[in-house]
Amino acid sequence: MSPHEETPDNTTSAVSTGNDVPSTTPSSGKASNGRPSPPNGANGVREWRRRSKYRHVEAYHSKVRQSSLSREPNPNVTASFLGFRNLMVIVLVAMNLRLIIENFMKYGVLICIKCHDYRRQDVVLGSILFGLVPFHLYVSYVIELAAATQAKRSVGRKKKDGSVEANEREQRIFRWTWRLSAFFHCVNTLCSLGITSFVVYFYVHHPGIGTVCELQALIVSFKICSYAFTNRDLREAMLNPSIESALPEIYSSCPYPNNITRRNLLYFWLAPTLVYQPVYPRSSHIRWTFVAKRLSEFFCLTVFIWLLSAQYAAPVLRNSIEKIAVVDFASIVERVMKLSTISLIIWLAGFFALFQSLLNALAEVMRFGDREFYTDWWNSPSLGFYWRSWNRPVYLFMKRHVFSPLVGRGWSPLAASTVVFALSAALHEVLVGIPTHNLIGVAFAGMMLQLPLIIITAPLEKIKSPTGKVIGNSIFWVSFCVVGQPLGALLYFFAWQAKYGSVSRMAE
Amino acid sequence: MSPHEETPDNTTSAVSTGNDVPSTTPSSGKASNGRPSPPNGANGVREWRRRSKYRHVEAYHSKVRQSSLSREPNPNVTASFLGFRNLMVIVLVAMNLRLIIENFMKYGVLICIKCHDYRRQDVVLGSILFGLVPFHLYVSYVIELAAATQAKRSVGRKKKDGSVEANEREQRIFRWTWRLSAFFHCVNTLCSLGITSFVVYFYVHHPGIGTVCELQALIVSFKICSYAFTNRDLREAMLNPSIESALPEIYSSCPYPNNITRRNLLYFWLAPTLVYQPVYPRSSHIRWTFVAKRLSEFFCLTVFIWLLSAQYAAPVLRNSIEKIAVVDFASIVERVMKLSTISLIIWLAGFFALFQSLLNALAEVMRFGDREFYTDWWNSPSLGFYWRSWNRPVYLFMKRHVFSPLVGRGWSPLAASTVVFALSAALHEVLVGIPTHNLIGVAFAGMMLQLPLIIITAPLEKIKSPTGKVIGNSIFWVSFCVVGQPLGALLYFFAWQAKYGSVSRMAE
Repeated sequence: MSPHEETPDNTTSAVSTGNDVPSTTPSSGKASNGRPSPPNGANGVREWRRRSKYRHVEAYHSKVRQSSLSREPNPNVTASFLGFRNLMVIVLVAMNLRLIIENFMKYGVLICIKCHDYRRQDVVLGSILFGLVPFHLYVSYVIELAAATQAKRSVGRKKKDGSVEANEREQRIFRWTWRLSAFFHCVNTLCSLGITSFVVYFYVHHPGIGTVCELQALIVSFKICSYAFTNRDLREAMLNPSIESALPEIYSSCPYPNNITRRNLLYFWLAPTLVYQPVYPRSSHIRWTFVAKRLSEFFCLTVFIWLLSAQYAAPVLRNSIEKIAVVDFASIVERVMKLSTISLIIWLAGFFALFQSLLNALAEVMRFGDREFYTDWWNSPSLGFYWRSWNRPVYLFMKRHVFSPLVGRGWSPLAASTVVFALSAALHEVLVGIPTHNLIGVAFAGMMLQLPLIIITAPLEKIKSPTGKVIGNSIFWVSFCVVGQPLGALLYFFAWQAKYGSVSRMAE
Repeated sequence: MSPHEETPDNTTSAVSTGNDVPSTTPSSGKASNGRPSPPNGANGVREWRRRSKYRHVEAYHSKVRQSSLSREPNPNVTASFLGFRNLMVIVLVAMNLRLIIENFMKYGVLICIKCHDYRRQDVVLGSILFGLVPFHLYVSYVIELAAATQAKRSVGRKKKDGSVEANEREQRIFRWTWRLSAFFHCVNTLCSLGITSFVVYFYVHHPGIGTVCELQALIVSFKICSYAFTNRDLREAMLNPSIESALPEIYSSCPYPNNITRRNLLYFWLAPTLVYQPVYPRSSHIRWTFVAKRLSEFFCLTVFIWLLSAQYAAPVLRNSIEKIAVVDFASIVERVMKLSTISLIIWLAGFFALFQSLLNALAEVMRFGDREFYTDWWNSPSLGFYWRSWNRPVYLFMKRHVFSPLVGRGWSPLAASTVVFALSAALHEVLVGIPTHNLIGVAFAGMMLQLPLIIITAPLEKIKSPTGKVIGNSIFWVSFCVVGQPLGALLYFFAWQAKYGSVSRMAE
């Protein structure tokens, strides 16, 4: 049984609602306006009282109506379920607040800045590895400078002797130049990646410092590759002026050999992109308040992630170790689910911190115009859409320098995709496995598994109906964020603990 | 670092995207269509290869763009966050599945049909109380039949003697008839409520059986009241024919004394409404598949609620007892939050089971046309809106027979609302307190507390902006479902346990 109410402002509507009895009573022929205004005169009082008594006969059930949750078409009611969305947000917040209290009661405060265990050696080695980056870039600059000098001479010779034989010779020289420069670039890149990986794997114990070093080495390798490939094609365009005219319009302000400067390479190094262009779209000025906001976002999110990892993820991971060790299936499922929420929040916070806050701040400082570091991957109707949209810098690199050239050479798109994913998988394994000193292949397998998932979910992308999109989107979220991430984190953490014990003293 | 991909169907777009280099190569002046079609002839192969190599110089960063999560106006991107809604649903499901597994590991299976402890006496007494209902209804029918006979005679006498004195006399008789019938109706209703409450409070131990009996008694009391009030006004309308013409159009098919039949009252008893009308809008026929679907929904939801209560709510409530006993604040907050999710789910399932499934099934069988048993209360922007929309049968009863007559008599709407809420509060306390044998006043206080909350949130209802609606809606959800319900359940359960120990053997 339950109550109901009438708010004060609801009065007039409550009184004048329904089939109001018209005011034609026997005692008075005058029409009242249907509102409970104070009656004037004894006759008025009687008339008004009688009217009001007739409330009891009002026909509240006057027409056929459907319940708003019935699936039948309701012409009079357009059901909106916005309130349930609000409820979901509230319940999510409440549930997580509860977990925070539970965690606090169980473990107390686990956060401890002083007791974090990183070694002096790790910091020193990390700094040295970072210091090597400009060196490798300088090497690739020198290689390109030599190739450019060679190309300029070639153009000069062609101007003097325009015969077909001379042209053929210059083409041969061009190809040799490319092979030579490609060789040196490869040596340079492999040195950069190899030295970093070797040092991190064998001498840098702390996985965080290791990851940053490895990430930096990978980014620089990507940039060197893009720099080499792009300059090779620019060189060819200069040698064949008819092709040059077909270069993108935006490059015209800096024609080929002019872009081989230290300043230009420095800009590419610091710009938030992995795709080399002699010229980028630029913003007109630096908005320092924008930079400050983005950097403070980044700082806050980093602290947030650290707190979450130390206070919530670490105990769950630690508990899970025992469960995995005894291979208790129900417990593992329960642990993975508990981890999934935390890892999802950490992942989302990390995504925002890196791709929105840090890259935007960097782009603003560099006056880099194209801020499309991601598109709306959260709406992904398929896994393919996700991989094309969440990390645009890497996606554009892979598309420009791996996928398109392969397809251009006559490879099937599926084969080219497989190559791209195999490369990605290898780099993922390097990025995760080397800093954690466990090349167990989970990251590699996880990436390679994406390919069949992409093929399976591809048809969902074409469905125009909202239901199809929701199904595809749900499959994406479940496969990636709820199952994929926490399971991976769990396995690497397990491997780490099996090898070294805990990462910090507080775990004891 | 991360990968990206190209789905097979993405090929052509990937190849022809961006600033494609036009196909005007030195070796051939012909334009190709920009697609990687198999080249024909050696010249074609060379031309096509050269073209494809030019992928490396494409300008992927060709214009200034914003990140889609940046707040700046994005002309090219309209950000949609539908994916995050799907994620919320998935996370909610995952979190609750996790809790189910955790609960299972902690307590095992608590569900046990055989060990449920209800006494033979409870069932027998419950059946007798149910059997009394038709008796009370029959009494009220007899009262109305007598009053109708009297009224018919009065109309007959008025036809013979139309003088003013005779009219005055008949009015006097009418008023006396009403006072007499009202007295008998009161006795009847109070007997019905009083006997049930007395028996349930002192002799029916099981709270579930008690609640059903008490609920049935309350519904019948409401119906008798509505029956008496409505017939009184119909009688007056018959005596004053000019008023009669002002009766709702829908009543004309069954003018006053004709509706005083056992059949008509039986229909009112079984119809899903608390507001008596001689005639209701009716549906044309009974769709038995509709009835079957609704009843199976009701059955499934009942089982679901039972499982949830036995397996999840009961242990949490039991754990909470110890926490309340030692008055550990953090633990109480944590327990209330844990309870809130479960009680919310039970409440929503119960709402759907009763108001959507059961009342719709009943309405279909009775060919009752007006199925608006609730409106979209989940979107409530204020508490007032909620109380007007979640339980329409009671709301309409209170509006027709309490609120409107009071306002019609010159009461202020606030005073009338207070009366309505005080009445509701008393009935809530009766409905909850009597079956649990604890008239501790929490339900009463909870209901009375609604009034200030309604007044506070009333301004939110008038805000047209979506933000205002979201804030009001959130206040509503938090106050009612997250804080109000579980706290109340906890307190009544606590009182019960303090008095009797556990309700079933399985709790030991």
